[in-house]
Amino acid sequence: MIPQLRTSAPDFANSFAVLRRQLNDEDVSAVVANIIERVRADGDKALLELTVQYDRAPLESAKKLVVPAETLSQAHESLAPELQAALRAAAERIEEYHRRQLPQSWQYTDFNGNTCGERITPVARAAVYAPGGRAAYPSSVLMGVIPAKIAGVREITLLTPVADGAVPPITLAAAKIAGADKVFTLGGAQAVAAAALGTDTVPRADVIVGPGNAYVAEAKRQLCGIVGIDSLAGPSEVLIVCDDTANPEWVAADMLAQAEHDERAQCITVSPDAALLNQVAAALVRQLETAPRAAIARHSLVSRGALITAANIGECCQLANDIAAEHVQVMCADAPAVAANIHNAGGLFIGAYSCVPLGDYGAGPNHVLPTAQTARFASPLGVHHFIKRTGIFQATAAGARIPAADAVTLARAEGLFAHAEAAALRTKA
Amino acid sequence: MIPQLRTSAPDFANSFAVLRRQLNDEDVSAVVANIIERVRADGDKALLELTVQYDRAPLESAKKLVVPAETLSQAHESLAPELQAALRAAAERIEEYHRRQLPQSWQYTDFNGNTCGERITPVARAAVYAPGGRAAYPSSVLMGVIPAKIAGVREITLLTPVADGAVPPITLAAAKIAGADKVFTLGGAQAVAAAALGTDTVPRADVIVGPGNAYVAEAKRQLCGIVGIDSLAGPSEVLIVCDDTANPEWVAADMLAQAEHDERAQCITVSPDAALLNQVAAALVRQLETAPRAAIARHSLVSRGALITAANIGECCQLANDIAAEHVQVMCADAPAVAANIHNAGGLFIGAYSCVPLGDYGAGPNHVLPTAQTARFASPLGVHHFIKRTGIFQATAAGARIPAADAVTLARAEGLFAHAEAAALRTKA
Repeated sequence: MIPQLRTSAPDFANSFAVLRRQLNDEDVSAVVANIIERVRADGDKALLELTVQYDRAPLESAKKLVVPAETLSQAHESLAPELQAALRAAAERIEEYHRRQLPQSWQYTDFNGNTCGERITPVARAAVYAPGGRAAYPSSVLMGVIPAKIAGVREITLLTPVADGAVPPITLAAAKIAGADKVFTLGGAQAVAAAALGTDTVPRADVIVGPGNAYVAEAKRQLCGIVGIDSLAGPSEVLIVCDDTANPEWVAADMLAQAEHDERAQCITVSPDAALLNQVAAALVRQLETAPRAAIARHSLVSRGALITAANIGECCQLANDIAAEHVQVMCADAPAVAANIHNAGGLFIGAYSCVPLGDYGAGPNHVLPTAQTARFASPLGVHHFIKRTGIFQATAAGARIPAADAVTLARAEGLFAHAEAAALRTKA
Repeated sequence: MIPQLRTSAPDFANSFAVLRRQLNDEDVSAVVANIIERVRADGDKALLELTVQYDRAPLESAKKLVVPAETLSQAHESLAPELQAALRAAAERIEEYHRRQLPQSWQYTDFNGNTCGERITPVARAAVYAPGGRAAYPSSVLMGVIPAKIAGVREITLLTPVADGAVPPITLAAAKIAGADKVFTLGGAQAVAAAALGTDTVPRADVIVGPGNAYVAEAKRQLCGIVGIDSLAGPSEVLIVCDDTANPEWVAADMLAQAEHDERAQCITVSPDAALLNQVAAALVRQLETAPRAAIARHSLVSRGALITAANIGECCQLANDIAAEHVQVMCADAPAVAANIHNAGGLFIGAYSCVPLGDYGAGPNHVLPTAQTARFASPLGVHHFIKRTGIFQATAAGARIPAADAVTLARAEGLFAHAEAAALRTKA
């Protein structure tokens, strides 16, 4: 069922290249460009039309896109106690983690006596997108809003589409717990456009974060530069590195947990132990028999999954660094030592007890992670997406002399004479 | 000559909106998309053709795009001693500043006994673009390469186009001083495409940074997501906030230093002191008479500049936060106190001796700064552009129980049953 590869096979390079080939998203760029232009031109009017067109029954006015504060409180109060407790516990762990990410401003006096530094300030307004439509994602609400809160963002709005005519109460409860300032029942490219450009109802955000479908990602891509964004989310991925100490039932369960997300999710397990991988293959078949989302998971595993037999654990790590997966699980005898050699990963889950679903639901680290090999350069959603740095330079009259003289020399060499003049004024104290 | 506005004027809101209106770059997106496709399809062959088409005389092979290491050394040795010394001093100050930006990995044990953390690693390969064509920008080479070096990037390539048939020796000397591993005489969108996609000659980079013209910025925009990028550079900007303690000759000199960059540069001075602003206007006229780049500067000041009289310093700071300029200079009696109220700025230059050209030529902070109001959310080029973070989660058997149980509860509520199954396995230790 799931493809099995060997790194020692003569055609491995080819098979591996096919496996790593990124999906081409259906071309949504023209549709999204049109949506953005409509929102830019007509603001709330366009938002109402687009929301009716894509998402829901007609609304009498754009004001109805705002979820009243009472509705949030009611959703929170009406939530089953065990769900409320689980959300609160997750929120606490996420907060505990992310407050360690807040960078501090710094400054120093340099050898010329001038003060240099970096000042950290939060963005004024952030919009967090949480997907909806077919399911509720309260955990994504926590993952977006809590870091913004820690950064000190003045106004945090949540954008989330209706599912079956309403936003699920658990999503609203998560917004309440995380401390979102305003919730809009808005989804898709039009939600991103509204937050990036501002309308009468939706305030213009400085930063828009959070995962969404291909339309949401494309809207973020097209508006990047007008608004700050986090990374562009693609289909979810897990890479499991394991040796003969791993339990094949657990490996299979962890692959299924990723594969049930999406037919385009990518689940790969690499191991030096071919026998173990055969057991994983068998366990996958068995577990799929009773999995409620078996159709989606099977499609993902057959079309984009793989079990790869490698020469040794070192080669497994090399493959992991090439693949640069969103999630990397390490289930090996000395898991921390193996994990130390994996540099390209959105999130590292080290040891048999550290499976991805624990991270998904708030073990601590963020679950909004770079996909599609972007872990080569991109980072998980975090407090750093909601702050900005300002370079600080404060010279004294005496301290300015040396850098000013250097600036005169270099400006003349670059042919920028007014630069040289302005700098020369500072050499004369 | 330069427009003068008053915040108390009835039409100020309008005039201010016109002033803040962002320039629409000529639409280069189709041209750039075509260049990217050519490089994707034909690699080095396309690079050679495009380089001849846009930049220079024909080359016999793509290998000739690489500047030999001896040429770098020769350029460095042949440089006038005062230029070499000025570049070295600037490089030292830039290094002194940026090594404070290197974030540290961290981890902690949470209340359940699980280890959470964040691991910082450098990207493997970075490409630094330095503009050329009409002038030499050795300072931009230092600003791009030094932070990459501090981050620990394994391979740093410099991309810079020829000017009059060759890369200026001072640019090559800067590459040598900063420690670039390889220099390619490549410019424009084709340079960005080559580094993002890789060709036989140009290695694929994980991150591409540095300022460039509209084609370079558009190529970065179109390739963002395939490669990491810094912010998209637009025309340069300075905003000067000053009170009656400022020297109008200095203010004018600082405006001219910005205006000489580009006809589209934006130079604005705001002050509560109308008399001072009149003196600045007069000084500008006078200084322009002898400025070598007067035509460019005059065009910039007339078409995009302004002297704005505000009610008080508080209002000046509000305007500064609205404008969110690339460079903000504060020349006031208590400059640090005023600067403390300015949150949206790429770089803050505090006090009369801290003019932008000192920063341009390496007083310490980076000179590649967010433009076009993106200082609302974006940061100067820095070490953080060359590192990535990986979330770390390492549970113990006992520690996994609580987050696993929460995950089971939440996964069932979200309808992700295989997530619940995988988590449930971790509740049974």
